Amino acid sequence: MNELQERIIKDGVVKEGNILKVDSFLNHQIDVDLYHWMACEWKKRFADVEVTRIVTIEASGIGIACIAGEQFHVPVVFAKKSHSVNLDGDMYTAEVESFTHKNINHVIVSKKFIEPGDKVLIIDDFLANGCALQGLISIVNQAGAEVVGIGIAVEKGFQTGGQIIRNLGYRLESLAIVDAMDAKSGAITFRE
Amino acid sequence: MNELQERIIKDGVVKEGNILKVDSFLNHQIDVDLYHWMACEWKKRFADVEVTRIVTIEASGIGIACIAGEQFHVPVVFAKKSHSVNLDGDMYTAEVESFTHKNINHVIVSKKFIEPGDKVLIIDDFLANGCALQGLISIVNQAGAEVVGIGIAVEKGFQTGGQIIRNLGYRLESLAIVDAMDAKSGAITFRE
Repeated sequence: MNELQERIIKDGVVKEGNILKVDSFLNHQIDVDLYHWMACEWKKRFADVEVTRIVTIEASGIGIACIAGEQFHVPVVFAKKSHSVNLDGDMYTAEVESFTHKNINHVIVSKKFIEPGDKVLIIDDFLANGCALQGLISIVNQAGAEVVGIGIAVEKGFQTGGQIIRNLGYRLESLAIVDAMDAKSGAITFRE
Repeated sequence: MNELQERIIKDGVVKEGNILKVDSFLNHQIDVDLYHWMACEWKKRFADVEVTRIVTIEASGIGIACIAGEQFHVPVVFAKKSHSVNLDGDMYTAEVESFTHKNINHVIVSKKFIEPGDKVLIIDDFLANGCALQGLISIVNQAGAEVVGIGIAVEKGFQTGGQIIRNLGYRLESLAIVDAMDAKSGAITFRE
């Protein structure tokens, strides 16, 4: 097991409804040393890839992406979420429907901050159904840039998001893939 | 002028209505090297202060707080914003009314992540009227912890937030205090 997996076993909490709470170290309280380990791990796994920009989405992706930015030495851009459409022509917008909540969200990035030809590494904390991630990919494509890799901290392997992304041919590096969880016993099974 | 002030002069854009756009390096696209300079600067300015936890607020505070967390070697906690009241007893909640938009927002932190006796450094990107900051201070006080310092990147010195905080006796270190801006000429005057 790697550092993130060990930490999930130690401090993650499994709740009914396939909920994995990692708010004590990943996305409410933050263990910056763990973020640093994650950033170094992605740097290693994407060592052969040229990256010119990191893109993430608010809110909990931002901190991870910044620490990763230190390793990759590139600018970090965070997309904003909004319920309303932004009609400002200076923005790239992707409409994404949440599988879970059935509501529509918009993912928004200023056109100034992704350039054609950019080689984009997308970073986020969680991947479940992958709706937000699909919006980010759409925006990078709209900009004429290329998604060269996707780094995720925790992937829920029993939901469809990761498989869709791999089917589409993207290089996805999830640091912990949870294949099964049991709320009663608290057991968590990681993909090998 | 320090690094942040120089960058504001170089890349900040003054718009009508006392708006200062710093989205190309501070709060949409992020220059991680500049964040690192800011973090080191706060570490220097608060060298005599014991800090056990950094608290910030989503979204644009998170990245800055994480990079600061690397310098101070403490956990980082980010408060969440919500329009609705959270009745969950496990959360500290502060109700803050925006001077600008006249709407009510709630600032929320899990009770698990601020402990009585914690010595809290609050970090945020912007200080104007300071409503969000007042909510964060309220939450730290509710927790029986102590605000030992407040680090802000850009303070709008012509709005009331900074003065209120200093009047209340808090130690506030703003890395760039803008005392005047002129949308026509683009001129920005910093406090000495």
